[in-house]
Amino acid sequence: MIVLTDLTAVKQALRAQRIETPSWGYANSGTRFKVFPQPGVPRTPEEKIADAATVHRFTGVAPSVALHIPWDRVEDFGALTRYAADLGVRIGAINTNVFQDEDYKLGSVTNPDPGIRRKATDHLLEAVSIMDATGSRDLKLWFADGLNYPGQDDLRDRQDRLAEALRETYGRLGDDQRMLLEYKLFEPAFYATDVPDWGTSYAHCLELGPKATVCIDTGHHAPGTNIEFIVAFLLRAGKLGAFDFNSRFYADDDLMAGAADPFQLFRIMYEIVRGGALDPSYGINFMLDQCHNIETKIPAVIRSVLNVQEATAKALLVDRDALRAAQLSGDVLGANAVLMDAYNTDVRPILAELRTEDGLDPDPVAAYHRSGYQQQIEAERAGGRQAGWGA
Amino acid sequence: MIVLTDLTAVKQALRAQRIETPSWGYANSGTRFKVFPQPGVPRTPEEKIADAATVHRFTGVAPSVALHIPWDRVEDFGALTRYAADLGVRIGAINTNVFQDEDYKLGSVTNPDPGIRRKATDHLLEAVSIMDATGSRDLKLWFADGLNYPGQDDLRDRQDRLAEALRETYGRLGDDQRMLLEYKLFEPAFYATDVPDWGTSYAHCLELGPKATVCIDTGHHAPGTNIEFIVAFLLRAGKLGAFDFNSRFYADDDLMAGAADPFQLFRIMYEIVRGGALDPSYGINFMLDQCHNIETKIPAVIRSVLNVQEATAKALLVDRDALRAAQLSGDVLGANAVLMDAYNTDVRPILAELRTEDGLDPDPVAAYHRSGYQQQIEAERAGGRQAGWGA
Amino acid sequence: MIVLTDLTAVKQALRAQRIETPSWGYANSGTRFKVFPQPGVPRTPEEKIADAATVHRFTGVAPSVALHIPWDRVEDFGALTRYAADLGVRIGAINTNVFQDEDYKLGSVTNPDPGIRRKATDHLLEAVSIMDATGSRDLKLWFADGLNYPGQDDLRDRQDRLAEALRETYGRLGDDQRMLLEYKLFEPAFYATDVPDWGTSYAHCLELGPKATVCIDTGHHAPGTNIEFIVAFLLRAGKLGAFDFNSRFYADDDLMAGAADPFQLFRIMYEIVRGGALDPSYGINFMLDQCHNIETKIPAVIRSVLNVQEATAKALLVDRDALRAAQLSGDVLGANAVLMDAYNTDVRPILAELRTEDGLDPDPVAAYHRSGYQQQIEAERAGGRQAGWGA
Amino acid sequence: MIVLTDLTAVKQALRAQRIETPSWGYANSGTRFKVFPQPGVPRTPEEKIADAATVHRFTGVAPSVALHIPWDRVEDFGALTRYAADLGVRIGAINTNVFQDEDYKLGSVTNPDPGIRRKATDHLLEAVSIMDATGSRDLKLWFADGLNYPGQDDLRDRQDRLAEALRETYGRLGDDQRMLLEYKLFEPAFYATDVPDWGTSYAHCLELGPKATVCIDTGHHAPGTNIEFIVAFLLRAGKLGAFDFNSRFYADDDLMAGAADPFQLFRIMYEIVRGGALDPSYGINFMLDQCHNIETKIPAVIRSVLNVQEATAKALLVDRDALRAAQLSGDVLGANAVLMDAYNTDVRPILAELRTEDGLDPDPVAAYHRSGYQQQIEAERAGGRQAGWGA
Repeated sequence: MIVLTDLTAVKQALRAQRIETPSWGYANSGTRFKVFPQPGVPRTPEEKIADAATVHRFTGVAPSVALHIPWDRVEDFGALTRYAADLGVRIGAINTNVFQDEDYKLGSVTNPDPGIRRKATDHLLEAVSIMDATGSRDLKLWFADGLNYPGQDDLRDRQDRLAEALRETYGRLGDDQRMLLEYKLFEPAFYATDVPDWGTSYAHCLELGPKATVCIDTGHHAPGTNIEFIVAFLLRAGKLGAFDFNSRFYADDDLMAGAADPFQLFRIMYEIVRGGALDPSYGINFMLDQCHNIETKIPAVIRSVLNVQEATAKALLVDRDALRAAQLSGDVLGANAVLMDAYNTDVRPILAELRTEDGLDPDPVAAYHRSGYQQQIEAERAGGRQAGWGA
Repeated sequence: MIVLTDLTAVKQALRAQRIETPSWGYANSGTRFKVFPQPGVPRTPEEKIADAATVHRFTGVAPSVALHIPWDRVEDFGALTRYAADLGVRIGAINTNVFQDEDYKLGSVTNPDPGIRRKATDHLLEAVSIMDATGSRDLKLWFADGLNYPGQDDLRDRQDRLAEALRETYGRLGDDQRMLLEYKLFEPAFYATDVPDWGTSYAHCLELGPKATVCIDTGHHAPGTNIEFIVAFLLRAGKLGAFDFNSRFYADDDLMAGAADPFQLFRIMYEIVRGGALDPSYGINFMLDQCHNIETKIPAVIRSVLNVQEATAKALLVDRDALRAAQLSGDVLGANAVLMDAYNTDVRPILAELRTEDGLDPDPVAAYHRSGYQQQIEAERAGGRQAGWGA
Repeated sequence: MIVLTDLTAVKQALRAQRIETPSWGYANSGTRFKVFPQPGVPRTPEEKIADAATVHRFTGVAPSVALHIPWDRVEDFGALTRYAADLGVRIGAINTNVFQDEDYKLGSVTNPDPGIRRKATDHLLEAVSIMDATGSRDLKLWFADGLNYPGQDDLRDRQDRLAEALRETYGRLGDDQRMLLEYKLFEPAFYATDVPDWGTSYAHCLELGPKATVCIDTGHHAPGTNIEFIVAFLLRAGKLGAFDFNSRFYADDDLMAGAADPFQLFRIMYEIVRGGALDPSYGINFMLDQCHNIETKIPAVIRSVLNVQEATAKALLVDRDALRAAQLSGDVLGANAVLMDAYNTDVRPILAELRTEDGLDPDPVAAYHRSGYQQQIEAERAGGRQAGWGA
Repeated sequence: MIVLTDLTAVKQALRAQRIETPSWGYANSGTRFKVFPQPGVPRTPEEKIADAATVHRFTGVAPSVALHIPWDRVEDFGALTRYAADLGVRIGAINTNVFQDEDYKLGSVTNPDPGIRRKATDHLLEAVSIMDATGSRDLKLWFADGLNYPGQDDLRDRQDRLAEALRETYGRLGDDQRMLLEYKLFEPAFYATDVPDWGTSYAHCLELGPKATVCIDTGHHAPGTNIEFIVAFLLRAGKLGAFDFNSRFYADDDLMAGAADPFQLFRIMYEIVRGGALDPSYGINFMLDQCHNIETKIPAVIRSVLNVQEATAKALLVDRDALRAAQLSGDVLGANAVLMDAYNTDVRPILAELRTEDGLDPDPVAAYHRSGYQQQIEAERAGGRQAGWGA
C-alpha cells in the first residue's frame, strides 16, 4: 500500500487541474422516449452560467463553462462574457449545432445539397465570430451527419464535402483559436457516421494543421475499445485537444463521469499524467458532456467533477519509478500491482484536506445541499420556458 | 441451385402469411437529437389506420394494425374498430405505455412508490378493456423500467413488483386474450433494465401461465446475440408469442426489417418455417415495430413487409430433406450450402407472380407511388397536429 | 465516508467466505496462437493440489480445489482425496470435458451421431462416479457444443438431445450431489452455441429439478450484459448454484478476477450479500476459472482470491439501511452515493487486520514470494511433462 | 429488378479479379480448446502450394498463395517459387510471425527488452530477403504484441518501439516492394493491443511513406464497426493496400468469407468497385485469411473464393447512375433500393456462364468433389507430420 507522506507535488497538480462544465448539462435532457423536466432548471444562458459558477464555487476546479450555439445564443456575447466574469467563471468552448434544423435531415456539411452545406458552414463560421466576442479559444465540432441505410449517400463524397467545410472553417480561425473535432460511432445516424472514430478525426486534423486536434468523448466508442490507448496515441502524436467526459454502460449513455467504470477513468487520467498533459499549460480542455436525465443536475455535475478529480488524484499517486522498473523487468503482476495500489487507495481524505486548505468545504456535495441554492432556484425559476436540447 | 418447379406449397404458405403494422410507424419519430416531421403524417388514429389499410391494399398480407395507448386513445373504440373494418383491416395488438408520464421517471410497475405502481397497473388493466372493445387478442407489454445508476434501486425488489403487476394483469385477461412480454437490453434505462433479455421474459411468462408468451423485438439484443437460437428455443418451449420486426446496426435503431442484415432475417424465418409456426393458426403475431425517421413512412412500411415476405419465401425454399441428410451425416459445408442455396435465390419473381395471381400489382412500392396516395395525404393533412411519440 | 467502527459482523462474514480454485489454473494455458510454458508448473494432479493448498495456506479462504476430468484423472480418487486432505484442502467440483476428443468435432451430447452422444453422456456419468469417490458435491457441466455455420445442424434437435443427456445424468445424482450448468455466448463455436446464455441454462435446470442450478462464468456474456442483474434474478428464483470468476475486457479472456472491472465484481458481490448468499451454508460455490497465460500462476491465483475478498469486504460495508431509505425516497444520487461510498473505501487494512488476527501474513502475495515455494517448485519440477489443457 | 442485358463489362471486371489464398488455410487449425486434424492435410509448403494451385485450377481467379514464415520456411525459396510456377501459381505476400517464440511472451518489436526487439526486427528483415527470392511484392505485418493487464507495460513507449522497428524494415524494402500493416482489436492480447485499429495502422503508414499501406482483416474489428466506411476512407487517402477476408459472428472467428454476413461483404466490394480499386493494376491484394477448423479445407477455400466473387458480381451490377441520381435528390428509399436491387440479384448464373466461357466447370465445388483430388491427398498424405499453426 502507498505510504502517503509528502503529498505536496500531488496537491500542486490537483490545484492546477481545470474541468469545464457544459451549459446544456444544467438544462433538461432525456431520451427519445421522454424528457423529464426538473424544477429549477435554467431558462436562459445567464441562468446556466449561474449554475456553472455555483459548481465552481463548491469545487474550485471548474472555472469555465462551454456554450452551445444556438441554444445559448444571445444578442450581446460581450455582455454575457462580462456576466460570467462577474460570477467568477469564463466562457469556454463554443459548441456548434448543425443537426436540429429541418434542413439537416440528411446531413449538414456532408449533405448532398450544396445550399445546405453552405448554410452549415456559415454556422461554423458564425461560431468563430462568437469566439471572437467571448474570447473563447476552442471551437468544438460534432457532426451528427451520417446515413441510416446502405446506399443512402456516397460515403466517400461525403468525406470530400466534410474536408472542404473543415478547411474553410479552419482558415477563419485566429492565431489563438483552435478547432476540436469530435467523433462518434453512431447515433443519431444508424448505418454510417461521417466522423465515426478517432482515426477519421485524426486524419482530418492532420490534414488541416496544428490548430486542429481530436476531441475524445468517452461515450462515443464501440464496445471493447481501449480509450486510454487512444489517449496515449494522440498525446504521442501531439493531436489530443480535449475530452468530453461522461460514462456509459452500453451506448452514448451520457451518465456522470466515472459512474459506470471508475477504473477506466483512472486509466485515462493515468495516461494524461504520464504524458505530462494534466497542466492547463499543455492545452487540453477537460470538459464534461453529460445528460442528467433523472438525477438533480447541479449536484450531479459536482459529483462528476469530483469523480474526475478523484481519478486524477489516484493517477498522481502511481509510483512511476516502481512501475517502470516492474515493466522493464517483465514483471506482469508486479507492474499491475503498482497501478492497482494507487487505484485502490482512498483519495477522498487527500482531496478533503486540499479543499480545506484552499478555503473550500471538504465535501462539496453536502455543502451544496446545505447552501440553499437548489431551493432558491426551484422557487425563483418557476415561470418561463425551461432550457433543453432546443433553440 | 434450386430448381423452381412446383411452387404450389410455397405460394400457399406465403398466401397465409400475416404481418401486422404499427400505428406509430406512420407517425413522426426521431432520436433524442431531433424529430424531423414529414408532410402527410397522420394526425389521428383514424388516419394512421387509413395508412395501414393502404399498406395492406398494396401488399395483401398486412390486414391488422397495432395500436398504442395513449397515443391512439379514442372515445369510442367500437367505432374505431368498425372504421378499420370498413377500410379492410382490423385492430391488432394493444400496446401499453407506462413511460411517458412524469410519474414514471423512476419506473412504472417497478417503481418504489406503490401509488405509481398502482397507476401503472391500472393502465395495463385499461388496455385489456380496450381489447374487449376492439376484439384484440394480444396485450403487448414493454416496460422502460430500469436504472441509470448502480444502487439507484434494488434490482430484486423490482422483480417482485414486476411479478405482482403482471399477475394482476394476467388475471384480468379473457379466455381468448393473451399477454406478450417484450424484453430490451437497454434504453431508456442505461445501467439496468427490469426485463432485459428473453430469459427474464420467459421466466415471468412461465410463472404466469399459458396465456403469457415472449415477444422478440429483433433490435433489442446485445451485440453478437444469435436471435434465431432464441426463436428455436422458445418454439420448442411453446413460449414464442410475437415478433417486433425491425433492424439495427448498433442498438435499437428501429430501421426497416431486413435492411441491416437480410441474412439474419432469413435465418429467423427459417426457424419459424422449420418449427411449423408460420401459419396464423399457430398463433404468432408477426408485427413490425419501426421508426421511419428520415424516409417516407408508408413506402418504408411496404418495403419492410416485402423484406419479411422475401425472407420467408427463401426460408420456404430450403430443401429440408437435403438439409437434414447433410446435417445427420456431419457434412458441414454441404448443410450450409443447402441453406445458402435458398438464401441466394432471387425470390422476387415468385412473389411478383403470386401477387399477380391474387390481383395485386407485382411491385407494391411502385404501385404505391403511382397511386397518388402520398400526394393526397400531403395535400389533405396540411393542418392540425401531426401524430408522434406523444399522447 | 464510511466510519469504520464496529467491524465484527463484516469480519465474521469474511471469515466464513470460501473460494474454490481450479486445478487447471496452475497448469499451462494460452491462446490458439501460443501456449507459453512456465517453470515450476505441475506435472500431476497431486502437484496441482499442492499448489492449491499453497494458495489456501497464504489466503485462508481457498480450502477446496476443482478438478477437471480427464486432465486430473487418476487411478485412485480415494487416495487423491486423502492426499488433498493431508495438505489441508478438499476436492471440490468435478468438471467434465466433452470437447477434446476427435469424436466431439461436431458436438458431444448434441452431436447428430447417437453413438457420440452415448459416449459423451457416459463421460458425464463417470464424473458422478468420481464425485462418489471424492465426496464432491458439485458436477459442473460446460458444453463446447455448437455450430460454426448456419444450417450446419438443427438448432432445435440439438436442444432435444441436450435435454436427454442432462436428464440421464441428473437421474444418476445422489441425494447430496447436484449439477451446475454453465453457459457461454461463443467460443469454440462461432455461429451458435447450444447453451449460450443464462436463460437457456435456467430453462433446462428448471425442467430437471432442484438439484440443477445455473453456473455464472463472469466472462461468458455478450458485451453490455449486466451480470449482477442475472445474479439477483437467479437468487430470487433459487437457481444460482455457482460462479466461475475471472475477468475480461473483450471476450472470454479468463484474466484474473477483478482485474478488468473491479467495480463490476463489487456490484456482483453486493447482490450476493444483499441476497444472503455469501455464507457457505447457502450453497453457492464461488470458484475461480482463469488462465494465467503470461503471469506467474500461484501469485496470480492469490491475487484473484484477494480481489474477490476485497470486493466482498466492500459489499459488506454498504450501509444498507441508508441505501434502502435513499432508494425508497427516489433519491438517485443519494442511493448511488451510498453504494459508491463503500466501493471507494480502501478495505485492504481491514483484510490485513483480519489475517493477522487469524495467524496469517497480512500480505499474502508478499508472503508467498518470501516463502521460497516458487523457487522450490521451479527447481523440483524440472523434468516430466507439464500439465496443460490436455489429457 | 435489374435487366441483365449486356454483361460484357461486368464479366471483364470479374475476369480481371484476383484473390490470394493463404498457405495456412490448407493446414490444421483450431481454437485454444482443440485442433481437430483432418485427413489429407499438407505436411510441407509444397503440398500447401499444391492445394492452392488446385483451388486456382477450379476457380480461375486465385493464382497466388501467401506464405507464412517460419511455417513455410524452406532451404531454397527460389526452388519453391519455381515449384509454384510449375503448378500455375505464384508466391504472394510474405507473412511474418513474431508471436510463437518463447521470447515473444511479452511482445516482439514492442518488447521492453531491446534484445528481443532486435530479434523480432531481424525476422522482419529476413522476410524481405525471402521476398527478394520469391519475387513477392508484399510484406505483411501482423503483431500479436499487446498487454493482458493494465500497467503491464507503457502504452506509449511501445508505440515508439513499434515505430522504430517499422522504420528499419521499411528502409530495407526494394523499389517494387511494400509493407502491409494489419491491425486487430484483441487476441491474443486481452487488455491492449499495440496496433488495435485502422487509425493506428494508418498513422504509422503515413509516417513511413508511400510503400506502407493498411491491411484490413474483416474479422478484426469491434462490434458495430462499419468496415466499408474504412474501405472508402482509406481508398480516398490512397492508403488501402490489402484485405484479409474472412467472416465472423463475434470475434476473430476466421470463418469463410461471406458466411456470416454476405450483405456486408457486398457493401465492402461495392466500395472497391466505386473506388475503381478492383483491378489488379490498382494494387490491392485481396487475400483470404481463414481457419477451416471443422469443414474440409480445400472446398471451404473454394467456397470462400466464390463468395467474394459473387459479392463482387453484385457490386458490379449496381446501377451507379441511378444510385447517384437518387442520392443527390435525397431519395433515401430510392437510393437504398438501387443498392438492394443488385444485392438481391442471383448472380450465380452469370458466374457459371463466365466460367464456362473460360473453359472452367460452372460449379467449382462440385467439380472439385468429382475430381478425386480430395481422395488422392487423403490417401497419399498418410504419414508424416501435418502442417498447422506451428513452425
